[in-house]
Amino acid sequence: MGYREIKVTTHSHTQMINITGQVREIVSQSGIISGVCYIYVPHTTAGITINENVDPDVVSDIIYVTAKMVPWEDGYSHIEGNSAAHLKASLMGFSQAVFIDGGKLVLGTWQGIFLCEFDGPRQRKVLVKIIEG
Amino acid sequence: MGYREIKVTTHSHTQMINITGQVREIVSQSGIISGVCYIYVPHTTAGITINENVDPDVVSDIIYVTAKMVPWEDGYSHIEGNSAAHLKASLMGFSQAVFIDGGKLVLGTWQGIFLCEFDGPRQRKVLVKIIEG
Amino acid sequence: MGYREIKVTTHSHTQMINITGQVREIVSQSGIISGVCYIYVPHTTAGITINENVDPDVVSDIIYVTAKMVPWEDGYSHIEGNSAAHLKASLMGFSQAVFIDGGKLVLGTWQGIFLCEFDGPRQRKVLVKIIEG
Repeated sequence: MGYREIKVTTHSHTQMINITGQVREIVSQSGIISGVCYIYVPHTTAGITINENVDPDVVSDIIYVTAKMVPWEDGYSHIEGNSAAHLKASLMGFSQAVFIDGGKLVLGTWQGIFLCEFDGPRQRKVLVKIIEG
Repeated sequence: MGYREIKVTTHSHTQMINITGQVREIVSQSGIISGVCYIYVPHTTAGITINENVDPDVVSDIIYVTAKMVPWEDGYSHIEGNSAAHLKASLMGFSQAVFIDGGKLVLGTWQGIFLCEFDGPRQRKVLVKIIEG
Repeated sequence: MGYREIKVTTHSHTQMINITGQVREIVSQSGIISGVCYIYVPHTTAGITINENVDPDVVSDIIYVTAKMVPWEDGYSHIEGNSAAHLKASLMGFSQAVFIDGGKLVLGTWQGIFLCEFDGPRQRKVLVKIIEG
């Protein structure tokens, strides 16, 4: 029932921030032993993905190639000029679903959960909800 | 239990259609107060994403850049010639999961839910299911 | 409650493997009539997507264009040299959610569920969990 909110302050224009610790904490506090944990961003220029949690070069490489795939300047019509951020958010996705088993998130050894900021710096929110089952 | 179906007629080859109103209506009719609402396309050349619901230039920019990222003609092998549409659908995704709280969809201020047509015009279906919790 | 595991041996560097049959089998064995089935990869260089299950040219075209969008060599910093695989996994996604109705997966006529190997060959795992509802 209900959901929890994580507040994240981003510090640069494009940035991937590991929020796995905060999500684990919410799962732990819920006391739920088995279910699915949803991590959702209620924004349109930020996304949520899963990726490697060890070498920070992985996320910086992801940011680098994504910027080449979706150039910031490209004769867009949208007056705010941040259409690239909108598309990158759709490509990464607005939510991830991770299993809970034995009271813990079932992540692979190298997996972390990342908020993807594509038009920062800003104050962002991440919503976390658990369905038991 | 069960799921509902939304029928959508698309009118051009590539188009993003805001279906938030129809999804809200299904949530409202369900009477469910708290849960997760899944929006799913049972197609392989159409996807579902979330993005800005105000300025229509955002979705037209997304369509424009996506067409550059995944060119329609590129020496593909698939005989129907619509491989670009298949990849774009995978990039956007086949489903979105949105929380329900207080009997309403928990969308961010600027978020709308869009059917992404990549090989229209066609008749499309969107399936909506709610899990209570 | 709990989840099931599918083991998949991939045979090339980049490959999309249809795992629909194994997922259907798990759904059938669960005895669950109505719900949502989650298919999740606990890896960071492999993803899960849905796409056409008939003409194998579709997935080979997807692999071909994705390789052009995200080149394998591009001056990446990550020392393992597989940053392209990490991004491709994020683009496809780490999970899919498919409805269960009447005891069966609700897939479109042409839809199959694919493990996307982007840095093989390897032994991979796919986790499958069902929430009733």
